[in-house]
Amino acid sequence: MSEFKELKQQAYEGNMRLPELDLVLFTFGNASAVDREREVFAIKPSGVPYAELKPEDIVIVDFDANVVEGNMRPSSDTETHAVLYKHWEHIGGIVHTHSTYGTAWAQTQQDIPIMGTTHADHLTQDIPCAPPMSDEMIKGDYEEQTGYQIINDLEDRGFSYEEVEMILVGNHAPFTWGKTIKKAVYNSAVLEEVAKMAYLSLQIRPDAPRLKDTLIQKHWERKHGDGAYYGQEND
Amino acid sequence: MSEFKELKQQAYEGNMRLPELDLVLFTFGNASAVDREREVFAIKPSGVPYAELKPEDIVIVDFDANVVEGNMRPSSDTETHAVLYKHWEHIGGIVHTHSTYGTAWAQTQQDIPIMGTTHADHLTQDIPCAPPMSDEMIKGDYEEQTGYQIINDLEDRGFSYEEVEMILVGNHAPFTWGKTIKKAVYNSAVLEEVAKMAYLSLQIRPDAPRLKDTLIQKHWERKHGDGAYYGQEND
Amino acid sequence: MSEFKELKQQAYEGNMRLPELDLVLFTFGNASAVDREREVFAIKPSGVPYAELKPEDIVIVDFDANVVEGNMRPSSDTETHAVLYKHWEHIGGIVHTHSTYGTAWAQTQQDIPIMGTTHADHLTQDIPCAPPMSDEMIKGDYEEQTGYQIINDLEDRGFSYEEVEMILVGNHAPFTWGKTIKKAVYNSAVLEEVAKMAYLSLQIRPDAPRLKDTLIQKHWERKHGDGAYYGQEND
Amino acid sequence: MSEFKELKQQAYEGNMRLPELDLVLFTFGNASAVDREREVFAIKPSGVPYAELKPEDIVIVDFDANVVEGNMRPSSDTETHAVLYKHWEHIGGIVHTHSTYGTAWAQTQQDIPIMGTTHADHLTQDIPCAPPMSDEMIKGDYEEQTGYQIINDLEDRGFSYEEVEMILVGNHAPFTWGKTIKKAVYNSAVLEEVAKMAYLSLQIRPDAPRLKDTLIQKHWERKHGDGAYYGQEND
Repeated sequence: MSEFKELKQQAYEGNMRLPELDLVLFTFGNASAVDREREVFAIKPSGVPYAELKPEDIVIVDFDANVVEGNMRPSSDTETHAVLYKHWEHIGGIVHTHSTYGTAWAQTQQDIPIMGTTHADHLTQDIPCAPPMSDEMIKGDYEEQTGYQIINDLEDRGFSYEEVEMILVGNHAPFTWGKTIKKAVYNSAVLEEVAKMAYLSLQIRPDAPRLKDTLIQKHWERKHGDGAYYGQEND
Repeated sequence: MSEFKELKQQAYEGNMRLPELDLVLFTFGNASAVDREREVFAIKPSGVPYAELKPEDIVIVDFDANVVEGNMRPSSDTETHAVLYKHWEHIGGIVHTHSTYGTAWAQTQQDIPIMGTTHADHLTQDIPCAPPMSDEMIKGDYEEQTGYQIINDLEDRGFSYEEVEMILVGNHAPFTWGKTIKKAVYNSAVLEEVAKMAYLSLQIRPDAPRLKDTLIQKHWERKHGDGAYYGQEND
Repeated sequence: MSEFKELKQQAYEGNMRLPELDLVLFTFGNASAVDREREVFAIKPSGVPYAELKPEDIVIVDFDANVVEGNMRPSSDTETHAVLYKHWEHIGGIVHTHSTYGTAWAQTQQDIPIMGTTHADHLTQDIPCAPPMSDEMIKGDYEEQTGYQIINDLEDRGFSYEEVEMILVGNHAPFTWGKTIKKAVYNSAVLEEVAKMAYLSLQIRPDAPRLKDTLIQKHWERKHGDGAYYGQEND
Repeated sequence: MSEFKELKQQAYEGNMRLPELDLVLFTFGNASAVDREREVFAIKPSGVPYAELKPEDIVIVDFDANVVEGNMRPSSDTETHAVLYKHWEHIGGIVHTHSTYGTAWAQTQQDIPIMGTTHADHLTQDIPCAPPMSDEMIKGDYEEQTGYQIINDLEDRGFSYEEVEMILVGNHAPFTWGKTIKKAVYNSAVLEEVAKMAYLSLQIRPDAPRLKDTLIQKHWERKHGDGAYYGQEND
């Protein structure tokens, strides 16, 4: 029996939540879960429809994207995951989707502005849209460079990956992460909903203002601050 | 056995209708039901996913938001519910959601204009959007102040809470109420549908006029007036 | 046993299709089926949720809207149905909904322009939007007058109710009809889909042209003309 | 037993996927699968609702659209399929739908611009919208001419049908094809999703730019180029 059985199961469950949450069409997405001790992660095999995916199909790869265990080719986006796991020590899961509203924003090359408390409950910044990658990055090791594009964009903005757990890659689509794969999946659904709400608000009122700072701070603090009182004690 | 078993069941059922009606994602909402005799209400515990919610998880609190019975922390919005129950003697249930179209309107800080009979079947006014709260209110007891923001906005407009059973809190999201929790849930779904229709009408025709008074009165009266003839005698 | 058992069953099935086709929220709609020989029709009782509706709840009324059989009050829109059945001898069923896109167009007081073959497969005209009713009509016998507003608008435009089987009542919502209740229900779903497509096309290209006459005629003729070749021989 | 049993089954399964993928309302669509050796294809019968469709209802026709086997009339669009099979030797399946966003774009007579990698994963060109057909073509053998309109438009643009597997017919709706009926169905869903994303992006930012060439080439190559590394070896 595989020593990675539990890790594969986690990755399998995370991946299966994506179609349940209407975040992927066909194979347009992938989720992974990391094992920090063994320095490997479990990721969806490339091009396999969710309806046919089985826990044993999940591929185990190391942080250089070499396959450690598995009979199938891992997701074509595996190197992006590998780069993020290598550089960001405190994340446990990563999700990539082409969810409709998030991708539509990515195609505009614009950040999703923070317009309400639904957004502020999850992050205090606009959801960043990294610029489309340079031709050099695209023609080089594209998927690895996608990881660096994400890391560099957060750094340029002075954002912490532990606070801002989501990004759009310009002209491409959303990437999200979190302490667990479950949280990364959750963040993908939050991004999609917030993207839809911001779209609608700006259609109704093109000059609708950004959320004011006191509300941003209040909603963030009550869920994530030192005196957070949202959820249960042991959450 | 809890003396509040029936009240908890009511609150449980009201809460469970919210995901069924597509009004909440994850834990973004809460519903409560009141027992006027005992001066307590039953409300969803904070941060518990609907798929895992059980009737016995429902928390009983008094009108000062003190927990009377329950092992879990009540919703972080509990004080808002408490203020409304304390001030509005004739309501039996309250619902708060971040439903997509309602929240999108709240993010614009605009009332939802009355544009058709679907709206007039339920209220004769635009659905009010209370302005975003002042910094003092936000930094104070935020959730309690949210309740006062709602009460004050209705009073400033001269609206009765028994006729206008729904409001948007600016940059936040919808709150609805009613004689029963069932009616409050119903009102949340009505608000969402009316919000979507008004959005679409204004996209098709930005200068579409407000509904004329005779139609507003007619549709309201046939459902709610002295000679109402909608529904069954015993409704 | 009721002599109207089969008629009630037909009306029941037609009504139950409305939530299945996502055309109604709660009780916002009603369908009826006529028996021309007995000069009665079967219609949904007022205010009864679809989930609770049973075939025996259906109410039988005559063309003056008097209840012939049934323990419940018929739909508040019964008089509108009665007027249409009385004046239009060749219709067998009527449906009224507040479907989202159809109602959004009604709220703009604009016809839905014919922009593609999906529309032309069903009618050769824009879907008419009757103007909002006059104050006299609204304050009079409102539901009966709604029927006359529909009849008069078709007549003013020179449209035959046997070709144009759908209309919007301005600021209100869609009404559809057909040779059978099944066809009337079908028409309600067609209207909603065509309303959504026209909305989207005009958002993408505000000056998108109306469908040209040759295509209108071709698509209408192949389904409804003398040499129609769509469907099966016995359709 | 029919010698076409397997072919009919393939066509049946392809057709049944269309409502599952929310690409058709009622009977607004049809799919076919070809047998190149026998020079026949299997297609949906005309006007039969998907809920009632059975494998044995599928009609077998030759490349001149003559019925070879079957008790029902084939789809009214059969001649369009026949023309495409006759001229394009390497396609195995064809799908026609009136899917909402694809049809909305067709009604604007505009190509769907390539705006992101979701699009580039499937084709390197804008999704072409053939102009509405000339009056002569419409009044002639309309369905056959629809096939020529599609073929001619691709040729005029210098597109290969083996690379560009989808088109809009102006004021009408989408047609897609592929090496198999399964791929043709897949392409219909891709077209609908890409059409929705492009619509949303242009609503958010009307001057959003077209995807740059390096990204177009990269995404196309990794799925379809000589060194493609998407999917499994045996895909």
